[in-house]
Amino acid sequence: MATAMETDAMRRAVALSARALGDTAPNPVVGCVILDASGAVAGEGWHRRAGGPHAEVHALLAAGERARDGTALVTLEPCNHTGRTGPCARALIEAGVARVVYAVADPSPAAAGGGRTLREAGVDVDSGLLAEEAEAVNIAWLTSVRLGRPYVRWKYAATLDGRIAAADGSSRWISSPQSRQDVHRLRAEADAVVVGSGTLLADDPQLAVRGVDGATQPLRVVVDTRARIALAARVLDDAAPTLVVVGEDADTAHLPGVDIARLPYAEPPGPHAAPTGPGGIDITALLAELHGRGVRSVLLEGGPTLAGAFVAAGAVDTVTGYLAPALLGAGPAALADAGISTIAQALRLDVIDVVRLGPDLRVSAVPAVPAVPTGPAASAVPAAPAVPQES
Amino acid sequence: MATAMETDAMRRAVALSARALGDTAPNPVVGCVILDASGAVAGEGWHRRAGGPHAEVHALLAAGERARDGTALVTLEPCNHTGRTGPCARALIEAGVARVVYAVADPSPAAAGGGRTLREAGVDVDSGLLAEEAEAVNIAWLTSVRLGRPYVRWKYAATLDGRIAAADGSSRWISSPQSRQDVHRLRAEADAVVVGSGTLLADDPQLAVRGVDGATQPLRVVVDTRARIALAARVLDDAAPTLVVVGEDADTAHLPGVDIARLPYAEPPGPHAAPTGPGGIDITALLAELHGRGVRSVLLEGGPTLAGAFVAAGAVDTVTGYLAPALLGAGPAALADAGISTIAQALRLDVIDVVRLGPDLRVSAVPAVPAVPTGPAASAVPAAPAVPQES
Repeated sequence: MATAMETDAMRRAVALSARALGDTAPNPVVGCVILDASGAVAGEGWHRRAGGPHAEVHALLAAGERARDGTALVTLEPCNHTGRTGPCARALIEAGVARVVYAVADPSPAAAGGGRTLREAGVDVDSGLLAEEAEAVNIAWLTSVRLGRPYVRWKYAATLDGRIAAADGSSRWISSPQSRQDVHRLRAEADAVVVGSGTLLADDPQLAVRGVDGATQPLRVVVDTRARIALAARVLDDAAPTLVVVGEDADTAHLPGVDIARLPYAEPPGPHAAPTGPGGIDITALLAELHGRGVRSVLLEGGPTLAGAFVAAGAVDTVTGYLAPALLGAGPAALADAGISTIAQALRLDVIDVVRLGPDLRVSAVPAVPAVPTGPAASAVPAAPAVPQES
Repeated sequence: MATAMETDAMRRAVALSARALGDTAPNPVVGCVILDASGAVAGEGWHRRAGGPHAEVHALLAAGERARDGTALVTLEPCNHTGRTGPCARALIEAGVARVVYAVADPSPAAAGGGRTLREAGVDVDSGLLAEEAEAVNIAWLTSVRLGRPYVRWKYAATLDGRIAAADGSSRWISSPQSRQDVHRLRAEADAVVVGSGTLLADDPQLAVRGVDGATQPLRVVVDTRARIALAARVLDDAAPTLVVVGEDADTAHLPGVDIARLPYAEPPGPHAAPTGPGGIDITALLAELHGRGVRSVLLEGGPTLAGAFVAAGAVDTVTGYLAPALLGAGPAALADAGISTIAQALRLDVIDVVRLGPDLRVSAVPAVPAVPTGPAASAVPAAPAVPQES
């Protein structure tokens, strides 16, 4: 059983971990608070970036000698492996910590086992304290470990009647300044921001984070099957790195110096799927490519066609909809063909959060049955690719 | 200034008034509480149906001699005219009531002036107490008096991506049982339920109120320009009265015994409106027809084409959207052509209420600029048709 002081310290550790959302890929976010032998806070820390010290090391350094016979509260099971930094389980033992409480067990094969190592060294180990809160903050990384692909959040902004633009294509501004600023927070928390070529050509978006202090810019990803992007596109400026994903046979001669990934096309749809037309990139291959580049969380910003392909691939883990209280009666819908032709096939979600942002509503929802890879392409990707977590 | 006891009594009067929503057309809903000279509740009542006693009369009967030197709290200014019942102002004077507090002034020319009559008889008169709450309950009737047409609530049920059905037309059930029961409450509170022929032919709805104790069935209205309805349609059963609205030249020979209104077609759209195609009934004429039949509140249940025509006519006063947490990616949108072609023309709304109904969200919103008649047809209808309020 955890004491009230330990619970308070874990709550603080969870809050600390959240500070680094979007900064630690391919690592998780982790927070740590060290209590001394009397139960007073002796040190705290959080993992700030891959290659830098782990949360436990920051906290142990801050606590110094006061860590001896103390208790460490950690949001994730301390790691057991030596990467760029030594294993945290060992560091805690050497500092003389008497008790370790972690919120969530580490599901990654490479890093797990820290709890056992600590126990074998005589440390009192407890787990599960505030597990739900800690998991919520770390959901992107935990999902990426479980599924072997990045966690995907699909974001859209639409009117109450589901339109993302008017009949003439105009869309500035459907949503409120408060909603648009909230999107910058989502971008800052993501490792990559993904858009399709339709959105690219219609809006010429920059896709960089603006107005979020200390944000790490996400990788900007343009899914542009036929390489229609112009070298002058704003997304190719130097505000953040950019990856252009093209079809295997695309002509990219006009894009010197641009980071390009050539990926296979989606397989023909199955008998129950609606025709998607030629030219779509295989979403499973796209996610594997991003995973291989260390991306653990993706913010999918549209447009409707690409979002439909993600839904069809079972690759949407959470939906964030900004609903503007306006009516248009015409114009493109937020989501295009997802291979769903009848009501029984609808992707059912659970609403987890509704917030007012100025005049708008932000609705967050997750699939009632969590997303899993489906379809013929799914088997082409191993369930847990051996992409190591960096230390 | 009202006392705390008076405020409590007015709150009770407002709650009593709401019991008769949907039952009193063409009259307003009204509640009344009588306090005796000591401030204790002596009697209460509410207007239950047109032709029956007004709220004040019910309350005075219940209070008997205790009304003398007492105070009457009434949600609407007591009427000053003699209809089927005598004027309430006179009844309050004759009962010896010393003070009258009403929440909202009566805007109708025929009935107004009750406050002045009371004052001239030496009664202490106050107004505005809980006016906002009282007005909210009576908003349909008050709006109908101000605009000279029924108050219109547009209701739709859609997925998060704005679809009211899947690609194959299937829609049972997009929304939850809780949402569907809530729609029956809206029907019970409305004087008329309106659908277009598309909805009629696709769903064959009955449109009656089910599962609401003591509900008055609304008038069922089918807007069926070319009279395509079959005599066997469920909406023509005997559960409630039904009006079929057809174009001036429609052939209705196959509909013996059916209540039919022949109305003009909408005028050609102006230069900025999208073409609506031939065959749409003029919405202003439709609302005038319903107003003339005593309808003060309309629940517009769709489909998208008819809803678009109402929006285009500036004839939607409130929007109630049932948002089901599901994605379809294809299928009809909740709202079709409303003559809006660019974002600057969007009908902007203010969200007034968000409620969870089982898994769904119910979002209520009103136009940021209240609906007014617009367009060439508007001038054909007088601002305040001389349709008397029944007493």
